[in-house]
Amino acid sequence: MAMKAPHRTTVRVRYGETDQMGFVYHANYVPYFEMGRTEFMRDAGLCYAEMEKAGMALAVVELNARYVRPAFYDQELVIETRLVQASRVRIRFDYRILRAGAGDPEAFEVLCEGHTTLACLGPDGRPTRIRPPFADRIRELGEDRA
Amino acid sequence: MAMKAPHRTTVRVRYGETDQMGFVYHANYVPYFEMGRTEFMRDAGLCYAEMEKAGMALAVVELNARYVRPAFYDQELVIETRLVQASRVRIRFDYRILRAGAGDPEAFEVLCEGHTTLACLGPDGRPTRIRPPFADRIRELGEDRA
Amino acid sequence: MAMKAPHRTTVRVRYGETDQMGFVYHANYVPYFEMGRTEFMRDAGLCYAEMEKAGMALAVVELNARYVRPAFYDQELVIETRLVQASRVRIRFDYRILRAGAGDPEAFEVLCEGHTTLACLGPDGRPTRIRPPFADRIRELGEDRA
Amino acid sequence: MAMKAPHRTTVRVRYGETDQMGFVYHANYVPYFEMGRTEFMRDAGLCYAEMEKAGMALAVVELNARYVRPAFYDQELVIETRLVQASRVRIRFDYRILRAGAGDPEAFEVLCEGHTTLACLGPDGRPTRIRPPFADRIRELGEDRA
Repeated sequence: MAMKAPHRTTVRVRYGETDQMGFVYHANYVPYFEMGRTEFMRDAGLCYAEMEKAGMALAVVELNARYVRPAFYDQELVIETRLVQASRVRIRFDYRILRAGAGDPEAFEVLCEGHTTLACLGPDGRPTRIRPPFADRIRELGEDRA
Repeated sequence: MAMKAPHRTTVRVRYGETDQMGFVYHANYVPYFEMGRTEFMRDAGLCYAEMEKAGMALAVVELNARYVRPAFYDQELVIETRLVQASRVRIRFDYRILRAGAGDPEAFEVLCEGHTTLACLGPDGRPTRIRPPFADRIRELGEDRA
Repeated sequence: MAMKAPHRTTVRVRYGETDQMGFVYHANYVPYFEMGRTEFMRDAGLCYAEMEKAGMALAVVELNARYVRPAFYDQELVIETRLVQASRVRIRFDYRILRAGAGDPEAFEVLCEGHTTLACLGPDGRPTRIRPPFADRIRELGEDRA
Repeated sequence: MAMKAPHRTTVRVRYGETDQMGFVYHANYVPYFEMGRTEFMRDAGLCYAEMEKAGMALAVVELNARYVRPAFYDQELVIETRLVQASRVRIRFDYRILRAGAGDPEAFEVLCEGHTTLACLGPDGRPTRIRPPFADRIRELGEDRA
């Protein structure tokens, strides 16, 4: 498997995303993962909104997250996304949520790591194959291809 | 206008509904309002889910909330709902979010007051009249009828 | 390991918890898990709000969810919770989100399965041991004890 | 009152912010308003996170929103913010959520209009005066001063 440089986008923590523990509530990282894969796809020429209009919805069938350090209100976070596996019906994305390290602008602290597996559903809600032109581009992007 | 006793339902504050100020984030009262009107309608024999399946969606066109006292994690709150106005296309609900007062179980503190106005939309997203049997029951429930 | 009957509580799907796919957005199951463990603890005589006031916050350090079938608006779901592992600093809860099967009220469909691992943090945000009286009760409840 | 040009920032609609009606759930505009005032303040040299660290939290005491047109998934919206009133203890912000009009890039459609009134709270949760240097800058920014 050839490792590619991950895609990067940023998000700023909203007030309502914190909880009374004083940092980002754990469920609120899940939309960050989604933002990561949406921008990954857009930058690769794959607009998810168009894919859905073409009758191919990507539903999350598995979610995993590991929380390492807290993220605080108003901080700008980096969302790293990689498309690690792609079959005709499923795609797996891996994510890391990072924060610029104090002092060294090149240093990043890992706050959260996770992945989601998505399955392609047709308009009837049943599994369906990812069709061209999306299928080919997604295969190209996957890191697990031979 | 004849005042009726308001409908009451309860909700327990979830952890993720608080923010770092230590109490419920103001946007998170809006779903409480929605829970209030949903249960009001159900208890009046009007299931909103069925109304939507029948091609009449109620979209919020106006929202107002006034925040009086904070609500804290894990507290059980009372949602009071009244249907104050109903026309052929619009419905207004008024809400009060209450908490049982310490000491006196009969005493309630007002935490938040608000109202929403909803407009009926057809499957095409355009305004449509509320049809029977929903229309008659909603008119009956409104407090502003002659 | 002795399997115990799981704890059960219910939740009704809110409108705002759905997304344009027409069913519950995957991130919105995470608060259901939290409701499950909160009510599990309350029914076992452990109020999490009091535990936090006593200086022991339980922060989620790992989250896993597997989505099997969609949950729809206004449906009443059952949250099953089991406390499967408990050490001095970490607790693991397993969850299943169920829906009463059509026809047979005794039948339940599994919509989502998952688990969370929580670590105990002190007021300074650093890991700390779970102290009495919480520690003993949590150990009793865990299914992995000898 | 001298009208100033409103502050503008942008936000892209997240998938989880939609509901089964197919557009942004009404409560999810409230965080957009918050993003608007946060960026307004930052661009005016007032970092809200620092204000809160200095013991002055701004809690929303009133919220109003009027929904004109739906906002759809993945659209980039413009948040317009104006600080219209400022006293020693309260601040009112007005908002408009806009979308670039199809065809004419200079044309904008209004999707939602609203305002929030915020009160300054001290670390004890009680109303407190906004102190320098925040007070002076906020007064300068308000459009209602003589």
